[in-house]
Amino acid sequence: MATRPSAPVPSLQTLIARADAALARVLPPEEQPPAELHRAMRYAVLGGGKRLRPLLVYAAGAALGAPDAALDAPACAVELIHAYSLVHDDLPAMDDDDLRRGRPTCHIAFGEATAILAGDALQALAFELLARDAAPGVDAAARVEMLRTLGAACGAEGMAGGQALDLAAVGKTLTLAELERMHAYKTGALIRASVRLGALAGGADAATLAALDRYGHAVGLAFQVQDDILDVEGATEVLGKTAGKDAAAAKPTFPSILGMAASRRRLAELTEAALDALRPLGARAATLATLARYAAERAH
Amino acid sequence: MATRPSAPVPSLQTLIARADAALARVLPPEEQPPAELHRAMRYAVLGGGKRLRPLLVYAAGAALGAPDAALDAPACAVELIHAYSLVHDDLPAMDDDDLRRGRPTCHIAFGEATAILAGDALQALAFELLARDAAPGVDAAARVEMLRTLGAACGAEGMAGGQALDLAAVGKTLTLAELERMHAYKTGALIRASVRLGALAGGADAATLAALDRYGHAVGLAFQVQDDILDVEGATEVLGKTAGKDAAAAKPTFPSILGMAASRRRLAELTEAALDALRPLGARAATLATLARYAAERAH
Repeated sequence: MATRPSAPVPSLQTLIARADAALARVLPPEEQPPAELHRAMRYAVLGGGKRLRPLLVYAAGAALGAPDAALDAPACAVELIHAYSLVHDDLPAMDDDDLRRGRPTCHIAFGEATAILAGDALQALAFELLARDAAPGVDAAARVEMLRTLGAACGAEGMAGGQALDLAAVGKTLTLAELERMHAYKTGALIRASVRLGALAGGADAATLAALDRYGHAVGLAFQVQDDILDVEGATEVLGKTAGKDAAAAKPTFPSILGMAASRRRLAELTEAALDALRPLGARAATLATLARYAAERAH
Repeated sequence: MATRPSAPVPSLQTLIARADAALARVLPPEEQPPAELHRAMRYAVLGGGKRLRPLLVYAAGAALGAPDAALDAPACAVELIHAYSLVHDDLPAMDDDDLRRGRPTCHIAFGEATAILAGDALQALAFELLARDAAPGVDAAARVEMLRTLGAACGAEGMAGGQALDLAAVGKTLTLAELERMHAYKTGALIRASVRLGALAGGADAATLAALDRYGHAVGLAFQVQDDILDVEGATEVLGKTAGKDAAAAKPTFPSILGMAASRRRLAELTEAALDALRPLGARAATLATLARYAAERAH
């Protein structure tokens, strides 16, 4: 684990394994009541996933020289939030999806009531964890700012608001600006928050926070453009979720507004903007740069 | 407003008006997008309600000499959490209730998807608010402990877990101990947290926090015993929700396990225990004592 700037850069796989182990540790045990709720929470979080948000926490923290031990709580917190949002988005009243990461969605496996509650409890656990777990070198004022950042990213002007805009957009024609605003709320806010949480745990100054926020904004949007491209091009078995779903649901996407070629150009511009924002950080930002490329080039 | 121990005790109505005004201020404006989500959030929170949890925050804070200005954020936070839990509990997949506080429930008024998201966004706002709003005299370490307390009270070992136990109990026979554990999770955890948040904002020491926790535990349970009694005895128009609902849903209640007379005795014991826990605090705890009596004697 890289705890000093001079330590070797850990591979993404090492960081994913670290996040998975931390998540397995902080989730409530399956045997203890309310057991069914605990099982649903663990099912929703521990069933794989790209762990992009924890990776961004670890990578941003590492760029500031924060030890990984100070990053486990925020890394888990953002993934718990992401997992809860998928559980609620998949519900029949929302996107009504039966398949997620190649497995039945949470409400298919556990029923709707338990799925709603599992999402609710995962959100609460994220905040509890961030407030609870001692992290060496992170003072209380920084902790409060991390909690504020996460709260703002999840709410009506963040992830939940973005899902509301997304549902309202079905069957409508959006401008590119409206589409980008929807995604900035729906997925961008939590991705930016992930970067900011890592940076705050590393004691970043205002200029570095601003640079990393430009990075987070670009990566969040790039991730979504690639998501839309993959929904057109990808195969269901590779994606682990139903391909062609956006078009079938008449959801506006980057390809549907810009066309495929311009969507790819936009993706390249955003990746360039993300890498550009990292320049002042130098070699310490190597993992962040890798993640910017990954967001744009991934196949699922 | 009572900002010093020597100031006159404010009436409950004054404190309710203070909480209502603070909630109206912190909720997002109806006109601003995502407008439908904002409207649903305001509808769920501002449609009346007893405001028991904010009252407990103000009363516990006042018992420790905290200024009301330091209590607005935690008072709003606990009510936002309470309101979100009602929105989700009322959903068709949960208790499937159409009427709440004499009005259509949130999903009847706004649709299921918006109701789920409004609940999600209200939970996030509670944490954001507690982390965001500067409170004179509350240091960052106390703020972190307040956030941890709220997170723990909302999660799988708190409110969400209690609702899971409640749903699992339908049609089952519970022992008194199992029924009390379910309520300790479902409504007790947030009521205890409300008292603790006020006390933490007032800089309470460990002994005072422990005494107030005994108070919060007793009041939380008393509130629930009276709720069950009212469900048997009350009329729908006074309750503002459907009476006789528990029996119709085959839910275990204090009257169904203990009978009516023993339920009333249990209520009296709990009220006595709550008042007893306040003794070390003396006259400063006058409003907390009033609330203990109110929880047991209210007609709706």
